[in-house]
Parts: sequence; C-alpha cells; structure tokens
Amino acid sequence: FLKHPRTCSVVGMPFSWGQPRGGTDQGPELMRNRGLGDYVTKLEWRLENRGDLQFEVDKPKIKYNLKNAYAVGQACEKLANETYELASSGRFPLVIGGDHSIALGSIAGILRARPDLAIVWVDAHADINTPETSPSGNLHGMPISFLMGLTDVIPPGFEWLQDYPKLDPENLAFIGLRDVDPGEREKISELGIKAYSMYHVDRYGIGQVMEHCIHSFLKDGKERPIHLSYDIDAVDPDHAPATGTMVRGGFTLREAHYIAERLAETGMLGSMDIVEVNPTLSHSDGANATVELGIHLVASALGNKIL
Amino acid sequence: FLKHPRTCSVVGMPFSWGQPRGGTDQGPELMRNRGLGDYVTKLEWRLENRGDLQFEVDKPKIKYNLKNAYAVGQACEKLANETYELASSGRFPLVIGGDHSIALGSIAGILRARPDLAIVWVDAHADINTPETSPSGNLHGMPISFLMGLTDVIPPGFEWLQDYPKLDPENLAFIGLRDVDPGEREKISELGIKAYSMYHVDRYGIGQVMEHCIHSFLKDGKERPIHLSYDIDAVDPDHAPATGTMVRGGFTLREAHYIAERLAETGMLGSMDIVEVNPTLSHSDGANATVELGIHLVASALGNKIL
Amino acid sequence: FLKHPRTCSVVGMPFSWGQPRGGTDQGPELMRNRGLGDYVTKLEWRLENRGDLQFEVDKPKIKYNLKNAYAVGQACEKLANETYELASSGRFPLVIGGDHSIALGSIAGILRARPDLAIVWVDAHADINTPETSPSGNLHGMPISFLMGLTDVIPPGFEWLQDYPKLDPENLAFIGLRDVDPGEREKISELGIKAYSMYHVDRYGIGQVMEHCIHSFLKDGKERPIHLSYDIDAVDPDHAPATGTMVRGGFTLREAHYIAERLAETGMLGSMDIVEVNPTLSHSDGANATVELGIHLVASALGNKIL
Ligand SMILES: [Mn+2]
Ligand SMILES: [Mn+2]
Ligand SMILES: [Mn+2]
Ligand SMILES: [Mn+2]
Ligand SMILES: [Mn+2]
Ligand SMILES: [Mn+2]
Repeated sequence: FLKHPRTCSVVGMPFSWGQPRGGTDQGPELMRNRGLGDYVTKLEWRLENRGDLQFEVDKPKIKYNLKNAYAVGQACEKLANETYELASSGRFPLVIGGDHSIALGSIAGILRARPDLAIVWVDAHADINTPETSPSGNLHGMPISFLMGLTDVIPPGFEWLQDYPKLDPENLAFIGLRDVDPGEREKISELGIKAYSMYHVDRYGIGQVMEHCIHSFLKDGKERPIHLSYDIDAVDPDHAPATGTMVRGGFTLREAHYIAERLAETGMLGSMDIVEVNPTLSHSDGANATVELGIHLVASALGNKIL
Repeated sequence: FLKHPRTCSVVGMPFSWGQPRGGTDQGPELMRNRGLGDYVTKLEWRLENRGDLQFEVDKPKIKYNLKNAYAVGQACEKLANETYELASSGRFPLVIGGDHSIALGSIAGILRARPDLAIVWVDAHADINTPETSPSGNLHGMPISFLMGLTDVIPPGFEWLQDYPKLDPENLAFIGLRDVDPGEREKISELGIKAYSMYHVDRYGIGQVMEHCIHSFLKDGKERPIHLSYDIDAVDPDHAPATGTMVRGGFTLREAHYIAERLAETGMLGSMDIVEVNPTLSHSDGANATVELGIHLVASALGNKIL
Repeated sequence: FLKHPRTCSVVGMPFSWGQPRGGTDQGPELMRNRGLGDYVTKLEWRLENRGDLQFEVDKPKIKYNLKNAYAVGQACEKLANETYELASSGRFPLVIGGDHSIALGSIAGILRARPDLAIVWVDAHADINTPETSPSGNLHGMPISFLMGLTDVIPPGFEWLQDYPKLDPENLAFIGLRDVDPGEREKISELGIKAYSMYHVDRYGIGQVMEHCIHSFLKDGKERPIHLSYDIDAVDPDHAPATGTMVRGGFTLREAHYIAERLAETGMLGSMDIVEVNPTLSHSDGANATVELGIHLVASALGNKIL
C-alpha cells in the first residue's frame, strides 16, 4: 500500500485542547528543530513536509462532559482530510502531536483510505472513555470511543465523523496499559479488545508480546497496513518526564524502541502518530530527553535498526 | 480458607530489635498514615484494624551470638497468638513490620492454623542463619532457621515456639536472593529449599520464575494457602532506598509488583508480611517512595490489577 | 586447558593510544587499588600479579587513516607474548585495560596457545572497522579486523601479527551491539558473524541469548576454551558512566553480571579482557561506580555467584 519512492509526509498538529495543559502544542516545532527530518531522509525515505495544520481555537467550553469539543472536532476534521489524502496516495502519514485527541482525526482519515487497517495503540492509558464514563471530560482520553462509535453523543464539531467508517474493535491492540479507568476496563472486556498491559509485558517479555500482537492481526496470513499511535507516556517517567499524565512502571528505553522497531520490521507499518510530548512539564534536561526520545521512536518506526 | 466477607486484618509490629538500626519501628504508623487502609477497602476487603502490638523492650543483650533474643522472642510470641487467631477465623492477616525477625511470630501462628501453608519469601537475603552460622547475631537474619528448627539453641523468650509446628523446608520458596552467607548457602542446598535467585530471574524472567514457583507448590493440583513474606530490600535500592541492608541488582518496580499480583491471582494468598521499611535511612523523598512502594505492594497482593 | 591449582594471572595494560582520550590508562591501577586481587583469591584462584606492561610511546601520528598505529602495534606485540606464555602454561590471563585496541594483542597470544578458542565480545560497538572503513582512524575500533586479517594494510608496528594465526569469523560472537558503523554492518553480514544486538536481548531476553551463544560454540558437544573480551561500554551509561563512547540503551547491572556468570558456569572460560574504564570522563561517584563494576564483572567471570 506504500508507493515507491517511499514518502514520509510529516504533518504537524500543534494542538493541546484535548487536555488541560498548554505546552503539548510545541511538539511539532521542537521535534522538527531537533532534526526529525534528517532522520527521515537518512533512513532513505523521501521527506514531504506538510507544515502545521491551522485550527480555529474556540473559547474553553464544556458540554456533555466534554471540554473543548468543538476545537477538537474541527481540528480532527482537518487532520482526517489530510491523512485521508496522504494515505490514499500511498504515502506514510507521520502525525506529530499535540495531545492524543488528534488520533481521532489521524486514524479516521487513514482508516477511510485503508479499510483493513490494524491499529497498535501504545499508551499507559486506554483512551476509550465515552462522555458518559470519562472522569475528567478531557477528549484526549476518548478518541477510541468516538472512532468505534461507542457513544450516541454527537458533540458540536464532530458531525463530519458520521461519514467515516467505524473502527472495528478487533482491529485495535493496546500495548503498555497501566492506568485504566473502571468504565474503560469494562469496555475493553465487553468488546474483547486485545490489551497487552504491563502485566503481560512483565510476565511474557516485550518480545513475546509483540509476536502475539502481530500474529493476532495476521490470522489469515494476509498482509495489512498497520498504524502506530504512540503516546510518549507509555515510556517510563524516568525517560519521558515531559508529558502530562505520567504513570510509573512504564517501558524502558529499550522496550520503547523495540516496539517501534519490530513493527517496522513487519513491512506493514504505514502511518504513525507521536503524541503528548509537553516540554513545559519538566526541567530542560527532561524536556530535551523527551523530545529526543520522540524523534528516536519515529526513527525506529521508519526502519532504523542496529544491524 | 478465607471466610466471606473477605476480611483483611492489619496488625502493626513497630519492632526493630531484630537488627541494629532504629527506625524500622515507624513502618506501621507511616504506612497507615499514608492511606494503607483506603487501598484495602477500595479493593473490596473488609478492613479490620488490629492496632499495634505492644512489647516489653529489654536492654540490648547478647547471648549465644543472638542480639536481643528475649525482645524478639516475646514480641513474636504475641504476634503468633494474634496471627493464629486471625488465620483460624478465616481472615487475611496483614502484618506491617518492623524488621524481618517478626516473620518468626507471624508465620508460626499462621502455620499452626493452616498446616498446609506454603511460604513465598521475597528477599535479597535468605534469613536462614542459625546462631551458629550468623556473622552478625541479628535475629532478622534467622527467622527461617527457628521456624524450621535448624538449631538446638532455645534462647530466652523462645520457649513458646516448641509448641508450634515446624516449617517443612519443602513448603518454602525464596525469590530475589542476591546476598547469601556461606552457611546459608549450605543449608539451602542440603535441605533442597526452592531458591529463585536473581540469576534465575535474569535467566528465565520473572514471569517464568513465578509460574515455576507456583506450580511447585501445587504438585497434586490441590489448592493450599500461601503466605507472602515481603522484605522491601528485595526491590532495587533505586526504588526502595529506605531500608537497612540494601543490595544492588534488585527487582525493578514492575517485577516487584508482578510477584505480588501473580500470587494474588492464584486466589490462594491468605496472609502477608511487609517488612524492613526504615524511613530514617534515606532522605525524605526516598523514605516517602519506600513507604508508598510498601503500600502498593500490599495493594497488589490484595488484588489490585490493571485490567 | 586450565592447570591446577587454578591460577589467574593479572596483566595490567595502562594503554590509551587506541583512542583519543587520556585516562583509560588508569584502569589497571584503579582496579588493583580497589581490591581486584582480593576478589580473585576469595574465589579460590591462585593470584599471580604480572604487573603492568611497559610500552614505547610514540608521538601521535596518522598513517593509512590509523592513529598511533606504531604505539598500538608494539604494545600489542608485548601483550601477545605475555598472554601466549600464560595461556600455554594453563593459566587464566586476565588483562586489565586500557582501551579496547589491546584485545588485538591479548587475543592473538591466547589464540596461538589455544587454537580452538571461542571469543565472546561484549560491547556496544563491533570494533571490526578496517583502515578503509573506519570513520575515526582510532584503533580501538579495529582490533577484530586485524585479528581476522580483513585488511591488507600492515601498519608500522604490526609486522609481528603475520606470524600469528588468524581468527576465524565463526569463532567470534558479539553480545550487546547497539552502535555499529555501516562498513561494520556489511562485514558482519558478509562473514556471517554471530551478532546478538540489543534487539535480540530485548526480543529473547539475556537468558536465551546466552544459551544460544554458548550452544552455537559447542555444536559437536566438545568443550573448548572461551575468551571473554568485555568492553565496559556494553553496560548502560547509568551504571558505567566513566567510559569514552557511551551509548544509551545498554545492559542493566543484572544483565551485565549474568553474561559473565553464565560463561563462568560453562567451565570453559579461560581468559578475559576488561577494558575502556576511563575515570576522567565522569564525576568521582561515576568513576568509582564504573571501576567497581569492572571488578565485579571480573569476579562474576571468575565464578562469583549467589548460590
Ligand atoms: Mn493517550
Ligand atoms: Mn497516555
Ligand atoms: Mn529479610
Ligand atoms: Mn533482606
Ligand atoms: Mn570495544
Ligand atoms: Mn565499545
């Protein structure tokens, strides 16, 4: 599904309205300035820089227990148009967040272009709350429920989503979960979503977890496009301190890279989000380390390897 | 063997005479104040707070290479009475130390009530010295040898122990060993005690170690009560710096929790000690982190899990 | 091949001309002063202290893209004579570096005495550049290519090497690779050298990696001497900060020891280099920790174990 010459199209999403803290919107600029593009070209991808998307920013509002729904909805509509176009033309959309609410737009667009898409969601959190179950009303904790159509609420700004295909729960896998809300736990269980929590990583090792995950997506032996939605808070706070919702007990640096590297190795990885880098939430060493880690994870996903 | 409604009976043992440093006696107060009870109830156990046991404190004495034997013996007699009563009535005795010498009392009482008890001893140390082999004379390094009757010495204060059943070596397993005295090594080998050292954890991973350990206790397929005696020094000094005998190369946070979580999952865990938290041996961040870790390990043992 | 009583012959190589930074030459003195010898004797080896070798130190020169070739060549000739004599008489040569260029001399001598030698090269780097491929011209990145005869260049000071047997690529295994130059990658692949990178350690665990490595050297079931060339930069910079070419994502303390411990357990380990400790490249805590780690790794290789 990727056309030659392989092209990585970088889309910046300087968006932070899916959660309460400013700073996540600096992600695209920081990652670009620190040399993201050089990694892309060194790994022998054609680099297409799509710039940053621009959004209408609404005044903060709460409706249906949803904070800033209109801002999120509109930004995601733009992003969905963008990723749909990129994916349709055989490019690798690389979306630089921004908070994780943008995955709603990113994945909606890619899924429309690639209906057999499988999604690997690397995150300490499940982000599958609905307006009904969310303890906070922050939309970065709900993109999956909207993608799957788990709620009947159509917030203002989300109308466009009805014309997009719904994500089938069996085409998603979580990796790295360790902080899951009660309502999320129920949904994961009811819908039978593949969920590799840190319990599984500790029990089986990241090597076996990845094999299990990959094979579960390839039951019939047929190749299919994979999207990697990487929330930097999946990594342990020791290594990624500049993020909004740190949870101890996360991935080591080595595991964090291995996940991306192993997916790249399948030859089926065709798109990626990297989200929740927030440089304002750590001292400057921590911020730099987190930005750099984000870039390195992208590099691994694009095929960087040791041997 | 646990009666419904499931009841967790918290017994404080502010006792530090099994080793030379003051401070371990603050464990029960610190863990209670930091919200231990809330975790218990949130996990849907009935909480029974048994308060702290009171002891006669003797002047420091040395006899038979045993420091403060009388203090240890008397305190353990009281604790054995307490845990016997609790275990007999189908409750979950949760003993908050204090130093590890208190496991002599804790386990003696539980073993009397539950003769088919299996013990998982999570520790950097083997605590199986006898008065004859101990390099230090500190009783927190000897509880297992007294429980198994490996010495003929009956120190003052230990007379009661003769009326209690002896622990059979095949009903104990060590996990996390990495600092073992020569005399201990011999005893472990002679008695054929199951000992999973860090060598085994590195070689097989904590997942396989726990499976091996659990299955070795269930050869005939019959369920049996398990006691978890958790010395916080099993965890790496990076994560548990506030303890008296730190040894590098310990468990990661994730492994430390996994052990307790996996035992909880068996449905057979019926009692626990958490010991050797000593807040005076680290700066305040380290002390807080260690106390909190103690609470989180208890929570995992009581059934806290991600999904 | 080791004669009884087992004798460990410690050879100091205070040599730093294989790379640009001073300080690595302090390794032998620091490790001796910190008690290396005591570990050796405690582990029931006879200790033979061979002192430090003395070298002609040339003025820095560059020829054939080789920095200080004459200094490296001459020092390695002396060391090769020394290790040949020690290995021939059934002793365990323990070479304390110094930078990794000295492995050229160390291994040349041992290989001459033990033609069926297998080499385990523990390193973040592959050290298999030739003068033609080396980006830096530093000889500590090339010892393997000279041992295998991968270049036709005979630099001044390297003439002696022609009388020594060549290392067969199938008798070498890398463990811990994570920073490999393009020219090295090609050579490893062309020659089919066994290379366990951090990718393999993450995927399979260090336990399985070591089993695979050891069994690959023992295909016909016959025992053979093993040489361990341990570059301290294989260990993560968190634990070994005092070294010249740190690469993140290295071995944990536990893995670092396990490698040496598992090789000792085979009964076939007959010689060792420990190199690239450079105390001047870290603050004093980091320098002390790195020196101590070096000693502990030697102790593990000489048979130190938990149980
Ligand atoms: Mn997320
Ligand atoms: Mn998250
Ligand atoms: Mn203990
Ligand atoms: Mn201990
Ligand atoms: Mn090296
Ligand atoms: Mn190296």
